[in-house]
Formats: sequence, C-alpha cells, structure tokens
Amino acid sequence: MANQTVTVVDADLRASVEQFYARHMQLLDDGRIEEWADGFTEDGSFAIDSHPQVARGRRQIVDGATRTAQGLRDQGIARRHWLGMAAISPDRSGEGIRVRSYALVYQITAADGPSLRSSTTCEDLLVPDGDSWLIRERLVCQDQPA
Amino acid sequence: MANQTVTVVDADLRASVEQFYARHMQLLDDGRIEEWADGFTEDGSFAIDSHPQVARGRRQIVDGATRTAQGLRDQGIARRHWLGMAAISPDRSGEGIRVRSYALVYQITAADGPSLRSSTTCEDLLVPDGDSWLIRERLVCQDQPA
Amino acid sequence: MANQTVTVVDADLRASVEQFYARHMQLLDDGRIEEWADGFTEDGSFAIDSHPQVARGRRQIVDGATRTAQGLRDQGIARRHWLGMAAISPDRSGEGIRVRSYALVYQITAADGPSLRSSTTCEDLLVPDGDSWLIRERLVCQDQPA
Repeated sequence: MANQTVTVVDADLRASVEQFYARHMQLLDDGRIEEWADGFTEDGSFAIDSHPQVARGRRQIVDGATRTAQGLRDQGIARRHWLGMAAISPDRSGEGIRVRSYALVYQITAADGPSLRSSTTCEDLLVPDGDSWLIRERLVCQDQPA
Repeated sequence: MANQTVTVVDADLRASVEQFYARHMQLLDDGRIEEWADGFTEDGSFAIDSHPQVARGRRQIVDGATRTAQGLRDQGIARRHWLGMAAISPDRSGEGIRVRSYALVYQITAADGPSLRSSTTCEDLLVPDGDSWLIRERLVCQDQPA
Repeated sequence: MANQTVTVVDADLRASVEQFYARHMQLLDDGRIEEWADGFTEDGSFAIDSHPQVARGRRQIVDGATRTAQGLRDQGIARRHWLGMAAISPDRSGEGIRVRSYALVYQITAADGPSLRSSTTCEDLLVPDGDSWLIRERLVCQDQPA
C-alpha cells in the first residue's frame, strides 16, 4: 500500500494549475498588482506566517501588495517568485483543490545582482474559475531551521 | 532530423511523474522518511556518487536517510529539494521510464537563512505502481566544475 | 472577468513544451552544442539583451554558443540552466506559441561550489516540429533592479 496517500492528478488539471501559477507570479513580479490580485476570489485570504495580519478580500490583498511593491521599488529591488514541487490533492469540501508547493523568492539589486531572498512553503486552496483557477485561501510559511 | 532523439511524452505520464516527485521531495524534507522510502521499490537502489556505498533495498535506504535527517536536525538544518528540467524517456527494458533531471538542494539555518547547498543531476528508473510510480534505481551525481 | 487574459493551455501541449525545454537545457549544459542548436529553426534567432549582436541562423547560434562553452571550460565553470514559470500563449501569427518564462543560471566552480549566476526572463516563439517544437525567436533579458 505504498501509494495509498498518493493523489493521482489529471493532466489537464495539472497543466491548468501550472499555467495559472506562471502567469500569477509573473504579474506580481511585473508589478501588475491589480491583475495579480484578480487571481484571488473576491473574498480570498492571504496569510503570511511572518505577518501579524491576514489580508482578507481582494481590496486588502491589493493594498498590502501595492505597499510591498512600492517599498521594493523605492529600494531598487526586483523580485522573481518561483513556485515548484506542487503537490495537488482534492479539497475535502469538494469545491476545489489543495496545492502545497515550494516557493523561492529571488531578488535583483544593483549592489548584489541576483540572490536568493527566501525559501517558503505555500499552501493554496484553489477553486475553479472557468478553465482556470482562483485562490480562495493562501498560507505562506517561511521555511524554518530544523 | 533535428528531433530524432526527442522523446514525445504523454501528458498523463508527465503529470503523474511530476506529482510523484513533488510528494516524494516534500516527504523527505518533512522528515517523513518511511513514507518517502515507500517511493522506492522493495529492492530499489539509491546511489550517490559522493558516497562510497550504494543503498540497496528499502531498509538500507530508510536507514541511511534516517541518519542523514537526524544529523541535519542536530545541526539545526532544514532542507528543500527542488527537482526540475525532467527529461523523460522510455527505458530499454520496456518496464519503466528513465527520468534525468536536475536537483537543487537548498538549506535553511538560523545563522545563514536560506542558501543553495548543492547542484546535482538525478537519474531515475521509475516503474509503474498503480497510477503512480516507484523508483527502482536512483543515481545522484554532484555537478562538477568543467 | 478576472481571467479574461488567462490562456488555457492544452495538457499535451504543455507536456511537450516542458519535455522540449528539459532536453534543450540539458544538451546545452552537457556541451552538446550542435544538438542543442538543433532546437532552433534553421533561420532561428537568439538575442540576449546584454549582447550587442543577435545570432541569426543555426550556424551563428552554434558558433556563439561554442565560444561561450569553450570559455567556460577554460575557466573550469559548469553551468545548469533552469527554466520555469512558463506562461504559454498562442502567437498572433497562428504559426506557433509564445512562451514567457524565467530562467536561472547556476554555475559550479572548484573555488565556489554551486552558486546562482544570473536571473533572466526568456521569451520564445516556438513553432511545431512533428511532436515537439523548434525555437524560431528567442530573447533573453537579464532581470534588472527595479
């Protein structure tokens, strides 16, 4: 019963999830915050374990990400978000899918060039939106020393 | 005949391989060594070019990985294994598939935060296991200076 | 209309693109420059924003990459190209697909071990070649500080 917990994933589903994340991260890194936030449901939530407040709803998500993006621009920092090793499983509610993935953040500055900024684990609840997905819940956790 | 050596890959096959590796690496990084080792066949082998001994069979694989995981915990080191650029081809035996991929190991410590630990090339022989895969042979080679 | 600009991607198409890139990058990193260049159309172009000249046609592409590979070997540098976060969209011409992706270059030297060398964004026009793809146009841009 080695694989009893392995969830078989439909190829179309996986392809649509990967395409969704590729565009999602490129929009963020390009500073297209409104379009990026359209990847959340209207009532979507975005929690980061190192932040005290959970952003609830697209408006709060846009506001927080806009402040972050402005702060990075002011410091001359560009970022590249890589999401990978995405393990997909059905959500118990039957309404969507759970995706647990790794996300690395690289940043580029004039002084240091490109460097690794952080290593995180990202847990999303995605719900269908036509042929693509929207994020209803996101929890990002900084990877901690053992 | 530019593409005579390009192997066309079935989308379902590729999706199942990617899902397999995502779970496989997350289990390892979460210290769930028994479940991780269930991703090998009972008689599976795991060779690392920088290690003198090949681990043969799940028991040896579990034992070796448990020692490694304990050592890392003792040093306060967490790791994240990223596998990517997976080139899939049929195995000549007809029993499975060969996957040659890149694997990066990041680690997280209190002193250094996240950093790149090693860059390797991973060659697996995967055999079907229901709707997923098991590793019959793994060879990991540290990438060497030219 | 949150997703009006999201392009739905066929799973077979995405799988074939990922397989193409995996082999393509492994050939480059293995120094198999002629085979790597066979991944471009005969009249393919390869532009890098930090290089003054666009390589036009397989011959120029081979020549440039051979010089680069030789220079790296002379310095004892191995490289690993990771391409990820591939956002695929149809090309307006209807002849192929556009792929905008991130590409990281890691390098391995005796002195430094593995390290991140550069973070780039890669825009390809791929045209079908049997069951796989050929690159008609490639533009690689170094990611810049904000």
